[in-house]
Amino acid sequence: MNAKTPSQSLTILTDMVLPGETNPLNNLFGGELLARMDRACSIAARRHSRRIVVTASVNHVSFTKAVPVGSVVTVEAKVSRAFKSSMEVYVDVWIEDRESGERARANEGIYTFVAVDETGSPVPIPQIIPETELEKNRFDGALRRKQLSLILSGKMKPEDATELKALFNN
Amino acid sequence: MNAKTPSQSLTILTDMVLPGETNPLNNLFGGELLARMDRACSIAARRHSRRIVVTASVNHVSFTKAVPVGSVVTVEAKVSRAFKSSMEVYVDVWIEDRESGERARANEGIYTFVAVDETGSPVPIPQIIPETELEKNRFDGALRRKQLSLILSGKMKPEDATELKALFNN
Amino acid sequence: MNAKTPSQSLTILTDMVLPGETNPLNNLFGGELLARMDRACSIAARRHSRRIVVTASVNHVSFTKAVPVGSVVTVEAKVSRAFKSSMEVYVDVWIEDRESGERARANEGIYTFVAVDETGSPVPIPQIIPETELEKNRFDGALRRKQLSLILSGKMKPEDATELKALFNN
Amino acid sequence: MNAKTPSQSLTILTDMVLPGETNPLNNLFGGELLARMDRACSIAARRHSRRIVVTASVNHVSFTKAVPVGSVVTVEAKVSRAFKSSMEVYVDVWIEDRESGERARANEGIYTFVAVDETGSPVPIPQIIPETELEKNRFDGALRRKQLSLILSGKMKPEDATELKALFNN
Amino acid sequence: MNAKTPSQSLTILTDMVLPGETNPLNNLFGGELLARMDRACSIAARRHSRRIVVTASVNHVSFTKAVPVGSVVTVEAKVSRAFKSSMEVYVDVWIEDRESGERARANEGIYTFVAVDETGSPVPIPQIIPETELEKNRFDGALRRKQLSLILSGKMKPEDATELKALFNN
Amino acid sequence: MNAKTPSQSLTILTDMVLPGETNPLNNLFGGELLARMDRACSIAARRHSRRIVVTASVNHVSFTKAVPVGSVVTVEAKVSRAFKSSMEVYVDVWIEDRESGERARANEGIYTFVAVDETGSPVPIPQIIPETELEKNRFDGALRRKQLSLILSGKMKPEDATELKALFNN
Repeated sequence: MNAKTPSQSLTILTDMVLPGETNPLNNLFGGELLARMDRACSIAARRHSRRIVVTASVNHVSFTKAVPVGSVVTVEAKVSRAFKSSMEVYVDVWIEDRESGERARANEGIYTFVAVDETGSPVPIPQIIPETELEKNRFDGALRRKQLSLILSGKMKPEDATELKALFNN
Repeated sequence: MNAKTPSQSLTILTDMVLPGETNPLNNLFGGELLARMDRACSIAARRHSRRIVVTASVNHVSFTKAVPVGSVVTVEAKVSRAFKSSMEVYVDVWIEDRESGERARANEGIYTFVAVDETGSPVPIPQIIPETELEKNRFDGALRRKQLSLILSGKMKPEDATELKALFNN
Repeated sequence: MNAKTPSQSLTILTDMVLPGETNPLNNLFGGELLARMDRACSIAARRHSRRIVVTASVNHVSFTKAVPVGSVVTVEAKVSRAFKSSMEVYVDVWIEDRESGERARANEGIYTFVAVDETGSPVPIPQIIPETELEKNRFDGALRRKQLSLILSGKMKPEDATELKALFNN
Repeated sequence: MNAKTPSQSLTILTDMVLPGETNPLNNLFGGELLARMDRACSIAARRHSRRIVVTASVNHVSFTKAVPVGSVVTVEAKVSRAFKSSMEVYVDVWIEDRESGERARANEGIYTFVAVDETGSPVPIPQIIPETELEKNRFDGALRRKQLSLILSGKMKPEDATELKALFNN
Repeated sequence: MNAKTPSQSLTILTDMVLPGETNPLNNLFGGELLARMDRACSIAARRHSRRIVVTASVNHVSFTKAVPVGSVVTVEAKVSRAFKSSMEVYVDVWIEDRESGERARANEGIYTFVAVDETGSPVPIPQIIPETELEKNRFDGALRRKQLSLILSGKMKPEDATELKALFNN
Repeated sequence: MNAKTPSQSLTILTDMVLPGETNPLNNLFGGELLARMDRACSIAARRHSRRIVVTASVNHVSFTKAVPVGSVVTVEAKVSRAFKSSMEVYVDVWIEDRESGERARANEGIYTFVAVDETGSPVPIPQIIPETELEKNRFDGALRRKQLSLILSGKMKPEDATELKALFNN
């Protein structure tokens, strides 16, 4: 199984915000945006692994900027690091100004997916070779985030999270 | 503004899993579940603050157990801690066996909402007084999670996260 | 098969009214509310019977109060009486004021479900023991409503509806 | 305001049953069918009154026959009787066999709508002149059903329901 | 297999335009209207052939008039001509004025469907006998449109399109 | 107003086919695919013109290959030619094999959009400079297709369609 680059799993989902998907402030509803991000991430995970994938966790999503009705929203997802059968997927969300065409970041998120076979059992997946500076940063941070996630779900003790301890001890 | 208990914001959303909301393994699609959790959490945040609320971040969601089509799913959300104008909301998801009636935890999540006025500006909100053991644990953990979230989004330096440093330094 | 109380089937579905579910007056569309009530009632019927259930009839739904977009709507369903394999389910719908937190009744409805096996054949179900005053009233009225329903669908002659005749003959 | 015939408000909504609208038995979900019936009835009420209309009550809906996924479903609604500003609308639902083309009745329902102006206040509407035998029967039964509905919602005492008393007293 | 008239496949889909189906100008979204037209056409094709049918192509749809939110839209589809196993279906879309009741044409479209068996292989279908003047015009034009479609998809050379050549050579 | 290349309006909408969007053969419903194509095309038209755009017509869509449930579908739209205020948009639809990652063309379509101001009046737009061989072919064919569309909608006489006459007269 040959390693792959993040760009080999790049998934772009550009779509509009229709009035049926908005909250009382006339902005895209948070839940609907989470669903779009999850779909784009799961396709990126599938493109990387070429297997069935299921959402394991949402590690972090921050909502920076409201997305008004009528906006064009672009969701871009790439696998940032692969472990044994799980993958971290990084997703960036952009909105663009209709008149100037400029793009502004609306939010970003980090999801984890697991590749499984038809019976739902985890299967091994290719590793990731980051290329750009941003991809390398995200690759490096992925291990820390995995340890955080394990601590948050009670599956790891803080004292065993060597990567994280280093972060707070210098 | 009087402080409130978590149970005053308890929000229950029990609903079925219809075939139109499933993935190729015939389980509830991750994105659809994230959207339901977001809706329940935002109602809990609104009940606590009695203001308009917007999703600020998803701090963590772990998917423990697949939710098959036809399941009855119960999403229960409660505000776990209030800060100046932001709230952490904890959400538990249960599925129940049709024949025995037993409930099993499918997943859990932590969302952050901000209370705003009609112009979108943050407004102050009541504080939280936890009552049960579980509510106290979640209340205590909320500050650590807030620091983590600030570090992850680049708004705080690790060395300033006093709560977290304590966690890794004993 | 032990009898059960109505509260053992209590089902709560709290959710928001999004702009995509409204009519031209910007209130929740009648049909969408009927669908939510049907889903909550069918879960209550399933919790009482622990079987597959199908909608047999809607006996009555009255729309008392419009539900504006952005409202938080709570649908609460409980089995009010069980017959051989059919159940009457009573459903109350509430909206709450965001600022005061007060609840107002938006409408109420009465549905009938039948418990069936995998082939669709009716199966016997537990009986109901009403506890509160309201539950007792609804239990008592259920037989009259069943007779009305049978007359309306041409399956019973008015002179055989002994419960109803008593109502009009005093 | 000239009286109208039921056929002047006839509304036909023929559509398919897609997999996303089904229950675990792979039949059209009861709630989805109720929503389609409500939409067709509200158009019929609007065609009769040429005003904005809102659902006042569902008087009765009986589900006679399951509607399998892939079916072609025809919903036909006509105003059966007009009162001062409210209308009873009768709706028949048919499914047709793909190979033989034969139609079978799946269920029928009775809805009440009120015509309102832009502020939501009731306005007077044209009366109904039934033409066919079936339309005459439904017209005659409408007053009894209206009294039943008023009794069920506690707005009329049984002893004042002269039409209904006659039904049970012979 | 007896030939049929277009009116034997007439399919009427009358429905409202809800706020969730609109574009930023508050009119029915083009894509949603295309989907409704496709559903009505496929039912007409199924009624003519009494077989499973799949969309082969959209030959032309012109959007003449915007459809505002709250409109009542009537989609009327009829098979205009049958070939060996493919059918051309003509669909007219009308909106009606709430106050006057007058109908105006919003747009019209031409779709092609193929009748298939359970394995997806094409099967022969009945021919069409047009009755009205409009049906005859559409029947005559269907062959030209089929040639156009074949040229556009590169399956026919312009010089072999005898019907079309006649159109441009007089 | 400077001319633009087709690639400046390239819009990619990659998404999955969920069970709720399928027909009885378990393939993506034609109408749903038409809606996705319309959304992608309207974004491409908006990116080219930086104005509000409305669908004027669907000139041609051919469905070459069924899209099974669970597929990853990529819709790619680019403006192929600009006229005074209308644009032709070409859209290609691909599905990819999960195991091999290979892409196959599922269908293609041609839409026309008009750029309008806030009152709905047409406004002038930048012209197109095609770059690749495929873009040049599509640019050249656009005028013929526009004449065809005008003839089909009765707005041009065949003898005035000089481009088309040349096609059939050599």
